[in-house]
Amino acid sequence: MPDFEFDFLPNHPAGVCAPAGWRSGNTYCGLKTYGAGKLDLGLLVSDVPAAAAGVFTTNVVRAAPVFLCEEVVKRGQAQAVIYNAGIANACTGEQGMLDAREMTRIAALKLDIDPKLVLVTSTGVIGHLLPIEKIQSGVSNIELQYGEPAGASASFCIMTTDTRPKRCVVRLKLDGKTVHIGGMCKGAGMIHPNMATMLCYLTTDAAATSDYLQKVVRDLVDDSFNSITVDGDTSTNDSVLLLANGLAGNTTLGAGATPEEEQHFKAALREVMVYLAKEIARDGEGATKLIEVRVRGAQNKQEARLAARTAAGSSLLKSAVYGSDPNWGRVIAAMGRSGAIFDSNKTDIWIGEVPLMLSGTPQKFEKASAQAALKGPNVIITVDMHTGNEGEAIAWGCDLTEQYVVINSEYET
Amino acid sequence: MPDFEFDFLPNHPAGVCAPAGWRSGNTYCGLKTYGAGKLDLGLLVSDVPAAAAGVFTTNVVRAAPVFLCEEVVKRGQAQAVIYNAGIANACTGEQGMLDAREMTRIAALKLDIDPKLVLVTSTGVIGHLLPIEKIQSGVSNIELQYGEPAGASASFCIMTTDTRPKRCVVRLKLDGKTVHIGGMCKGAGMIHPNMATMLCYLTTDAAATSDYLQKVVRDLVDDSFNSITVDGDTSTNDSVLLLANGLAGNTTLGAGATPEEEQHFKAALREVMVYLAKEIARDGEGATKLIEVRVRGAQNKQEARLAARTAAGSSLLKSAVYGSDPNWGRVIAAMGRSGAIFDSNKTDIWIGEVPLMLSGTPQKFEKASAQAALKGPNVIITVDMHTGNEGEAIAWGCDLTEQYVVINSEYET
Repeated sequence: MPDFEFDFLPNHPAGVCAPAGWRSGNTYCGLKTYGAGKLDLGLLVSDVPAAAAGVFTTNVVRAAPVFLCEEVVKRGQAQAVIYNAGIANACTGEQGMLDAREMTRIAALKLDIDPKLVLVTSTGVIGHLLPIEKIQSGVSNIELQYGEPAGASASFCIMTTDTRPKRCVVRLKLDGKTVHIGGMCKGAGMIHPNMATMLCYLTTDAAATSDYLQKVVRDLVDDSFNSITVDGDTSTNDSVLLLANGLAGNTTLGAGATPEEEQHFKAALREVMVYLAKEIARDGEGATKLIEVRVRGAQNKQEARLAARTAAGSSLLKSAVYGSDPNWGRVIAAMGRSGAIFDSNKTDIWIGEVPLMLSGTPQKFEKASAQAALKGPNVIITVDMHTGNEGEAIAWGCDLTEQYVVINSEYET
Repeated sequence: MPDFEFDFLPNHPAGVCAPAGWRSGNTYCGLKTYGAGKLDLGLLVSDVPAAAAGVFTTNVVRAAPVFLCEEVVKRGQAQAVIYNAGIANACTGEQGMLDAREMTRIAALKLDIDPKLVLVTSTGVIGHLLPIEKIQSGVSNIELQYGEPAGASASFCIMTTDTRPKRCVVRLKLDGKTVHIGGMCKGAGMIHPNMATMLCYLTTDAAATSDYLQKVVRDLVDDSFNSITVDGDTSTNDSVLLLANGLAGNTTLGAGATPEEEQHFKAALREVMVYLAKEIARDGEGATKLIEVRVRGAQNKQEARLAARTAAGSSLLKSAVYGSDPNWGRVIAAMGRSGAIFDSNKTDIWIGEVPLMLSGTPQKFEKASAQAALKGPNVIITVDMHTGNEGEAIAWGCDLTEQYVVINSEYET
């Protein structure tokens, strides 16, 4: 991939409000029973209608807002997102669909736009109905603002069991025009391919067709949000939304822009999506470390992915990383059940820079250096399968701690 | 299935030494670094050669003893098993194969039989070579005995992180002759379809062909050991062995016995295997409760199994059960990602006798009664998908506790 230049601003608070013409407003309306007083309802709005794309959960049980978002994305245009945290509006039957639609109507009324231009996302507990009157009065309190404080508030508002907001900004030039991409996401539990309990909002002021956006977001999801795992559970609400309002004035991506410009934009968007995906894994429920599993030398990319994702999701490996135990046996055992075909007698495994197994033979290694590679906040495990092919992939996960169990065994109401 | 009569003796200490002509001897030779002094090496021996069958791990990474067992089972006859706990002899390359073969040679010398009649199993840490000289001197100390004390010792000897032995006996009549089936197994961590880190030894004094035994053990594994999950990790060493020495004198199953007799034997063996499988799930690392997930009304048995196993293996559901949280949303979300096709708007979910969701609609329920159904040692979750078909299956798992993390994050050496 060509190494285009762009400014990447990790954790930049402006987030989704960094691109031109994007505003947000966030309030507390009483949906979050934990952390009462925290923001739990918000709007993200473009000054003009934007081209829209999205990727949604593969779970056969899908929350009401997912159906509505798919309708909007199919039409290819949106101008606003109404979002809440605390209640997922999943498994809520016919009433849930009515409530999701009502949320878009409430937002459209407030903004004086067509409800068909409003996306809706919800996250939180499954099986509870939304208290629509609280949302109605909450929306009436929302004040929309541009820029940093608004983007920062939005990144807090969408959080559930996340311990910190996840957002970033990238700035690049496309045919002489300055273009921004802003992103924010929430994750924490139920994070797994394909598509975790995660919501990701990507905004840009680039001009682009919805077909182009749909293609790039679909491509990039595989190497970002579909390559992370927290606990193997895929949720009912997962959504990645990408909205481009065109105010940067560049030649439209997908309709006139050069292939180089399109690649440039894609490379920048990739940086945003991979960063946000890793931030979700790193902030997995109870996690203390990010685990990066790199597989190479697999028969093909698909098998590399299977192996990397299975290892990154193994409860045994996650527990070993938590305890800084260089237990490479759990790496190879997990890959062995992943479905990838390889010969363990040819396989190499490193933790950090320390080789633990080479050509299937356990290596003598200094425990101190192996443990050092396991003690930091980023643990990198590299596996070369030496199948004679070039399949490679990376997956991200997090360690499994007592705290994960504590968080998920507390009785939610 | 016809309701044949048999006496089922759960947890009976005689275990694998209950059937006529089966002896065992067990010793400590220094392989278990934890719990030093505990039994870690043993022999299980029949007075005469027995028909042999087995089912082995589907992990592409297979330990050396698995290869040897497959060779023996292919020939259809065995007279002894040598087993050790503490070291798995997995990922040990060429030397591991030599060591596994040497173990069968040592056992054969001791017993004065053909090494081709000796099966070998190992369980414990991956990637360490076996200290063969310890095994050699250990075997020389072994004294073989019939009956209860020998079977009981064997059931302790095979344990790793198991907290208690798992064994049982069933007694039945086949054409007027008294037949016994004895079983023991070990499990604890890395338990998942297909075939957990589990070893199961089944002995009988029935007369049977190895083809018949292979067919029944293969059939029954799907509803027993392949229906349990502890942590989603499938191991390199999983083996189920079934050995029939014929000393009961019944007409040979698979060669002369009536279909009724064969069904009768199979029903009794099923009882043994399902019991042992549930005992493994119940004693999962750190577990405090057995979770039984029953799915019915699925499109077919395969989808019912997928849904039941995925739910039983969900870290989120397992954590909720630990906390006695009637969080049915985690049940339906896990089934939704399982690959089974169903409509959540038609689905019913019960915990114990308490309906939590009916036809996709969350039910008002008394928290006290739902929690009561979650507080005992056996938690039963029932799901009816109402697809109009009859697919049904049961899967067993256990709750996820802080203790699982503690056990698996301690540095093993």
